[in-house]
Amino acid sequence: MKFCNQCGATVSLQVPVDDDRERHVCSACETIHYLNPKVIVGCLPVVGDRILLCRRAIEPRYGKWTLPAGFMENGESSAEGAARETWEEAAAKAIDQALYRIFDVPHINQVYLFYRCHLENNAYGIGPESLESALFTEEEIPWDELAFPVVREMLQEYFVDRKTNEFPIRNTVIAYGRKPPTEL
Amino acid sequence: MKFCNQCGATVSLQVPVDDDRERHVCSACETIHYLNPKVIVGCLPVVGDRILLCRRAIEPRYGKWTLPAGFMENGESSAEGAARETWEEAAAKAIDQALYRIFDVPHINQVYLFYRCHLENNAYGIGPESLESALFTEEEIPWDELAFPVVREMLQEYFVDRKTNEFPIRNTVIAYGRKPPTEL
Repeated sequence: MKFCNQCGATVSLQVPVDDDRERHVCSACETIHYLNPKVIVGCLPVVGDRILLCRRAIEPRYGKWTLPAGFMENGESSAEGAARETWEEAAAKAIDQALYRIFDVPHINQVYLFYRCHLENNAYGIGPESLESALFTEEEIPWDELAFPVVREMLQEYFVDRKTNEFPIRNTVIAYGRKPPTEL
Repeated sequence: MKFCNQCGATVSLQVPVDDDRERHVCSACETIHYLNPKVIVGCLPVVGDRILLCRRAIEPRYGKWTLPAGFMENGESSAEGAARETWEEAAAKAIDQALYRIFDVPHINQVYLFYRCHLENNAYGIGPESLESALFTEEEIPWDELAFPVVREMLQEYFVDRKTNEFPIRNTVIAYGRKPPTEL
């Protein structure tokens, strides 16, 4: 960030009065520009004993398999956003949504909220951000071709939970690539 | 938003290629400036049969009682952020954090993540954003002087849950002030 989006003047990093960390502050109108984590919303769509995955038609991880997910938009709830992403990526209507998995990923400033769901009429297709969509049993999941570690972790947990039909909401912190404190 | 924070040129609302909604797009460098919901993180600090509340020294709701909470910062997990806010507002160290309550508040583009917690040595004080801090039993809670509806709702749920000592993670959508769909 180099310029103020309110007045167009330059910004500089300063610690504002009553604050404890550097922010981008406008040199002219003094607007403080805060940067905050973004929320990723998605679904884990269940059809019988199979899970719907999409093969990515976009970077990053072009060609890899993933659960439908993306950035939460202003004006929507997290469940609405997760359903929207499922529609956009898999042309499928999410129903029976139940919050399932929360990940904090602080080194990339993201929070993930994933919902288990069913699909209306068990129907799905291929959205513009996907090369293909398909249903997989646990044995069929392309474990070595998954796009993101959180997808692998969530799928592994799901298949364990399914044995008892109990799906507790879990939240954990993902620290892939984060330096351990002693290296800071 | 009127100016591009990357190059300082003017921005205008346009629907970018491959998108389905208006974004602020730079007239010069074509950077797309996305606006996304923000995450509010907080704690529900439990000391025996009492709850720690802080009386706000800042707007909005100056002088009203609330749970320690605030905007999640880049680089931290939601639990770390909730503990940071508890320190800043009540000079108390949150321990034993357990995710408890998630609210979507789409009409103000916010997601709330609240953790139940205990306090190290049961100690607390008064942070710079608070006029005072105090512990309240259910009967002592200043129900008519709470700062926000989500605080009231969460406290009511907590005292119900405490009777069975079961604290399921709940998520709901808050639609205060949102027009019903028929009026849209």
